[in-house]
Amino acid sequence: MHIDLLRGTEVSLPQQISGTLAQRITSGLLSPGTRLPSVRTLAASLAVSQMTVSKAYAELEKRGHIVCSQGKGCFVAEEVKQPAEGMASWQDGYDDYLPRAQLWRNFDSLKVQYPFHLASIHHELLPLADIGRIMAKLVTEHPELMGTYGNFQGDLELREVMRAHLLDRGIPLHSSELMITSGTQQGIDLVARTFVGPGDTVYMESPSYTGAIDVFAGRGAEIIAVPTDSEGMRVDVLTRMCDRRKPKLIYTLPTFQNPSGVTLSMARRQRLLELARSYRCLIVEDDPFSDLYFRQAPPLPIKALDREGHVVYMKSFSKVIAPGCRIACVAASGDILSRLIAAKSASDLGSPLLTQRAVLPFIARRYDAYAAKLRISLRERMEKAAQLLKQYAPPGVEWAPPEGGLNLWLKLPAAINIRELHGLAEREGVSFLPGEVCQAGDQASPYIRLCYSQMPEAEMVQGLTQFLQLLARQLGSSNRTNDSAS
Amino acid sequence: MHIDLLRGTEVSLPQQISGTLAQRITSGLLSPGTRLPSVRTLAASLAVSQMTVSKAYAELEKRGHIVCSQGKGCFVAEEVKQPAEGMASWQDGYDDYLPRAQLWRNFDSLKVQYPFHLASIHHELLPLADIGRIMAKLVTEHPELMGTYGNFQGDLELREVMRAHLLDRGIPLHSSELMITSGTQQGIDLVARTFVGPGDTVYMESPSYTGAIDVFAGRGAEIIAVPTDSEGMRVDVLTRMCDRRKPKLIYTLPTFQNPSGVTLSMARRQRLLELARSYRCLIVEDDPFSDLYFRQAPPLPIKALDREGHVVYMKSFSKVIAPGCRIACVAASGDILSRLIAAKSASDLGSPLLTQRAVLPFIARRYDAYAAKLRISLRERMEKAAQLLKQYAPPGVEWAPPEGGLNLWLKLPAAINIRELHGLAEREGVSFLPGEVCQAGDQASPYIRLCYSQMPEAEMVQGLTQFLQLLARQLGSSNRTNDSAS
Repeated sequence: MHIDLLRGTEVSLPQQISGTLAQRITSGLLSPGTRLPSVRTLAASLAVSQMTVSKAYAELEKRGHIVCSQGKGCFVAEEVKQPAEGMASWQDGYDDYLPRAQLWRNFDSLKVQYPFHLASIHHELLPLADIGRIMAKLVTEHPELMGTYGNFQGDLELREVMRAHLLDRGIPLHSSELMITSGTQQGIDLVARTFVGPGDTVYMESPSYTGAIDVFAGRGAEIIAVPTDSEGMRVDVLTRMCDRRKPKLIYTLPTFQNPSGVTLSMARRQRLLELARSYRCLIVEDDPFSDLYFRQAPPLPIKALDREGHVVYMKSFSKVIAPGCRIACVAASGDILSRLIAAKSASDLGSPLLTQRAVLPFIARRYDAYAAKLRISLRERMEKAAQLLKQYAPPGVEWAPPEGGLNLWLKLPAAINIRELHGLAEREGVSFLPGEVCQAGDQASPYIRLCYSQMPEAEMVQGLTQFLQLLARQLGSSNRTNDSAS
Repeated sequence: MHIDLLRGTEVSLPQQISGTLAQRITSGLLSPGTRLPSVRTLAASLAVSQMTVSKAYAELEKRGHIVCSQGKGCFVAEEVKQPAEGMASWQDGYDDYLPRAQLWRNFDSLKVQYPFHLASIHHELLPLADIGRIMAKLVTEHPELMGTYGNFQGDLELREVMRAHLLDRGIPLHSSELMITSGTQQGIDLVARTFVGPGDTVYMESPSYTGAIDVFAGRGAEIIAVPTDSEGMRVDVLTRMCDRRKPKLIYTLPTFQNPSGVTLSMARRQRLLELARSYRCLIVEDDPFSDLYFRQAPPLPIKALDREGHVVYMKSFSKVIAPGCRIACVAASGDILSRLIAAKSASDLGSPLLTQRAVLPFIARRYDAYAAKLRISLRERMEKAAQLLKQYAPPGVEWAPPEGGLNLWLKLPAAINIRELHGLAEREGVSFLPGEVCQAGDQASPYIRLCYSQMPEAEMVQGLTQFLQLLARQLGSSNRTNDSAS
């Protein structure tokens, strides 16, 4: 039995378990008489203590949802008693639309000593002092910026800067074809709200970015995962898939893909665009990492090839310069753009003017030099992590050094129970992202994602070493178990 | 024929008109052979120039969507020609899920000289210099705040401050029962995503806040408008409605309601909560204005009476202290809260830490004194506006001076065509919110909303006088037309 636990909230794990089970019982998903897993089994499968599960079962019994008897186990009550008055009673039966399968990744990074799960850059590498100085000047000299709504589409001056920035990267557009959003996540959300609804088909790489999966799934879309290889998405396979089921939208991270790190080849970029033309559909090109290459610059963005407005291109500046400023640029054309602007205006009346103006001088004048330096720092850090992997990763762990981006994508031996490993690592203060949450469905995945850039180097080294030693122990013990069993 | 025009974007009005019509034609909504309105008629009904409509029709004819002939008019083409290759061709047929009926309110406030349409407080009345000083200190001394993700649920220290703030207002909660969101709009959106889906019934006052209507409609909810009188929502009528159709959620603005300004009486607050208990549903209590009373403090919030977690209470700080900081507090309990936190974490990983910390000292120490002063300034401004209304509003305009909040809610004589008035006012640089967009359906409304607090006083006086004179002229001319016709 799988229950999604949300760590890092103030709702205890026993409450979460009893709440979920109560809901499944009242909704009929668990029918009367069904035997629940033993405390021991459920505790192991959820990677929580037996005490946690015992507390949850006790609460369910108290509320009359289940009946437990010594030696026999716990069963869903035949007649659910009228629940006691109070909060829990009615809330349990109140339905929701949460994408539960994605929830458990969201534990709170503040409470983890070695947060490898979140793909971000540690603040010591970010130009926050520079941007802070600009912002301090702005709020002192122009405090009214905090009280003024900006333009729906984004500050015109910032869009001019973005235009020049994109032109340098092979995308020639007018500033009227750009929109500023509060991070790429908002951009994806606006596209989904505007163009994706129940039953629409969204294709994306397998694996892909969890935040995008959640958003499209939340709109009721049919998400179809497209296989990938070392050149990125298998556009040939996608073509055959589209023949069977017409695409409404194709979501892709073509450059240093999140989480796998692979880059879509130029030939496939062209074919993907051809495909969108022939199916008259949109491509969402999410591009957080193209400036973070280690050896050579990646191929031109798909948007650079687009003449008919098939591509909605999204470039995040949040991750690379200041996560707290939440600035991203969305490039689109024609009526698709005007509908996105309408959605933006209905959603928040435009992004805050202050943060737009605070990043503007930096992006205009210092970004390129900063990015060049950042690439070197990230590469050094990646190489340090790669060295630790060579040194400590137990045999059977497969991975390739990435060519850019922030993540390592590790394939673990089949003997490793990733859910169990996740619980054990967390107890040692180490977090990672299980590959399972990067899958649109509920498929198992032998992969995990580790971000090497979100801690100071010494901490990254300490945390990764500790994690790899844990992994080796786990693999050793599972091998011993298998040996003794055989 | 009604077409939603979005002003203040860089997509021209002719393009918007031709785009919408092309979509209706390709989707079959306008069938082949249908006669389009004359240029003159459509221009008048959309309050645009005849040139604008002519350009739109010319474009449609060029693309083969319509056929025009001198003297006969324009008709939807019998056989739509294969559209030319290019952007417009495929984009026209690409379906979307935009709530079109709400769009035309969203013209850009930056381009309007007298923006009466947006309910906000002008920055000269806001404590932006104070908050700017705090923020300048923060970004200088702790630039890492711009690079750190906060807690999903909101900064604990800020939640402690919010707890004390709510306790002073009769709501006794633990800080673990509060969540910080990026404005109330995000709070409404999180509730809608989490708990509202296709076919669910959402009740709300008629009229209500357009931003909430859009969000619930966007989730596919059945929105049912509940009549109101001088004591607010008719809870007796709502009770009968709920007997026929079970509520999933009741959205209410009980205090100085937006847009009508009425306040729900204490007796009805209690009955509304009873209703939610008996139907096991949620109440969303949206409370932007309760600190902005002119004579006496309003009744206790519904949340103050709630013992079983039926109320999700939302208090905005954005409007009252710093719109650009986007800080609101959401109070909820039990499993409802934990599901909202899960939705928040999936949506943005927590609100930016910097802005949370920037408003914290102000809310903790200066808010109450500031609010007391602000009430006086707003009351003075409201009274100034009321005086102008008495002086210049033509006979037949009905309104009552509000007891709090930011808006005037005017009922115009039936002879006034509000859509036409909107276009004329815009040409004079004056904007207002037509009551029609505060209705969940597409009903006409004789009301308009004017905000008296978002300009310096002299500009407000100038703009309002100018608008009232325009209104008098319009009423005079329509009366003359009627006289001469009779």
